[in-house]
Amino acid sequence: MPHPADTVLSLLHKHKDACVSGQALAQKLGVTRAAVWKAIEALRADGYSIESMPAKGYRLVSIPDRLGEREITLGLNTRVLGRTVHALDSVDSTNSYASRLAVDGAPDGTLVVSESQTAGRGRLGRSWVSPPGVNIYLSMLLRPQMPPQDAPFITLAASVALARTLKDGYKLDAAIKWPNDVLLSGRKASGILTEMSSEPDRIRHVVLGVGIDVNMKPSEFPDDIRAQSTSVMAELGRSVNRAELLCRFLEEFEPVYELLVGGAGASVLDLWRGLSCTLGRRIVVKTLRGELTGLARDIDASGGLILELDGGTTQTVTSGDVGFV
Amino acid sequence: MPHPADTVLSLLHKHKDACVSGQALAQKLGVTRAAVWKAIEALRADGYSIESMPAKGYRLVSIPDRLGEREITLGLNTRVLGRTVHALDSVDSTNSYASRLAVDGAPDGTLVVSESQTAGRGRLGRSWVSPPGVNIYLSMLLRPQMPPQDAPFITLAASVALARTLKDGYKLDAAIKWPNDVLLSGRKASGILTEMSSEPDRIRHVVLGVGIDVNMKPSEFPDDIRAQSTSVMAELGRSVNRAELLCRFLEEFEPVYELLVGGAGASVLDLWRGLSCTLGRRIVVKTLRGELTGLARDIDASGGLILELDGGTTQTVTSGDVGFV
Repeated sequence: MPHPADTVLSLLHKHKDACVSGQALAQKLGVTRAAVWKAIEALRADGYSIESMPAKGYRLVSIPDRLGEREITLGLNTRVLGRTVHALDSVDSTNSYASRLAVDGAPDGTLVVSESQTAGRGRLGRSWVSPPGVNIYLSMLLRPQMPPQDAPFITLAASVALARTLKDGYKLDAAIKWPNDVLLSGRKASGILTEMSSEPDRIRHVVLGVGIDVNMKPSEFPDDIRAQSTSVMAELGRSVNRAELLCRFLEEFEPVYELLVGGAGASVLDLWRGLSCTLGRRIVVKTLRGELTGLARDIDASGGLILELDGGTTQTVTSGDVGFV
Repeated sequence: MPHPADTVLSLLHKHKDACVSGQALAQKLGVTRAAVWKAIEALRADGYSIESMPAKGYRLVSIPDRLGEREITLGLNTRVLGRTVHALDSVDSTNSYASRLAVDGAPDGTLVVSESQTAGRGRLGRSWVSPPGVNIYLSMLLRPQMPPQDAPFITLAASVALARTLKDGYKLDAAIKWPNDVLLSGRKASGILTEMSSEPDRIRHVVLGVGIDVNMKPSEFPDDIRAQSTSVMAELGRSVNRAELLCRFLEEFEPVYELLVGGAGASVLDLWRGLSCTLGRRIVVKTLRGELTGLARDIDASGGLILELDGGTTQTVTSGDVGFV
């Protein structure tokens, strides 16, 4: 049975822009008005701002900016993703934590989120700057019935969902830089690290790690990445509630992911193309084997970048860092 | 410091077809002849057959048929593979055990071998029959610096090495059935299950599981697979020492694997083609989406089977079971 405070919160959240009378709450819960008042006080103590309007009732003004299970569950409207939440204060890496859960049999869609990471990881063995309390560090455990060759689509789908969330939900100038960085007005605000466990015939599980710089101040970025980095707050000029952003992202991702698992990988590629800021531009790609300069023509079905080199020949790059020239 | 019995054993093994005098052993070890005699007795008690020839010395006649660390280390001539050995009596699955070791940071080439498996796994979620004391159930932890797309080569390379071991070392009629079953005179004697942990850009680790039916009697196979199954013993008419076969396989695999990591995947494909009993034959492939009948033309760089269908069109199959028609 849910705690009365959770039920009160959920009712207030459902009627977010209206007042709910203490009597209505008491009736719904089958408790006294004194018990309702006690629940309201408990929520206030937990950081929820709830207005009391004499003779009218209670109104939820704001939820605390915290990535707790209560805050995430409250506003999440998905079928599979995030139905199980592990909300942590600190962790080595949400991806490592989710991998351990995967081996222990955690269900499809399990979400791991942490207020900070002590060993956050990025692509190509890099670290991910993970200070506490300001950003989103999440990992989703996915168990798609797909051949391993199709796994790159999952990363593309996640970058599409995140760019859409920031563009449509927050009116930001979001675009995707190949392979999967989401940029805001040309500066990096997010990274994705996908890890897969597979057999030749099938995916065992995927851990999709997403780091989003939300309420981080420009001064908080390390020197070496500050110029190319930004956050949602830096772009909007105001902080945003992280649990809300997280929920919007999961809701945006779920249908794109379902498309993909349903075999519609090609339409995910089209969505990616529509949000890309890489295609059609002259770029330089730093790969492990050196630099390549040319025109970014397209991506292929494995997520590889098709580059038209200056000599006129075409080359597909599967891994590297893009710079614009 | 190694135990005196190990040093005695290693010296006797080095001069396998000759006698080593008690005095020579005593000198090498810097111990008394009585201590040598004690070591010999300890080895005999452990199942090693050691002949004493008056006035000549000791000769190693045979090693016990056991997959212990001592038996494996004794005859193994590799640089990386099997330099760390976990020899178990029983385990759920050597692949699962090796995956856990991988997460804990075990080194490249770590070998897990078990006398039995309680939940041995095969391809496509099937089980692998794993009775105690007669077969080889091994998993190798590999950390190749390769892009994940090249991982299928590893399985092909392992089937090549195993077929070569059985063909050259044991004079058996060994061949590979696509994708990676090693057959003896047309019947299955081995299966390979590769599991990979990867990021889009790189392989984190591969666990290569190999099951070899060595000294299993035909009557020991379950009814439903008996007709298509065989073992090394059933084909040779005599039992073989499993640790020796295991060492020969690792020694055969290491250079093929090095070729592969060095970028010579194409030559591994050629070796595979030369040992295949699938190519050039009319086959039926059972896939998850139905059956396909046609002529097996070739394999591609992802290990896919290129099938010329009866209508004349060509189709590449990435997963399935082959039957001959």
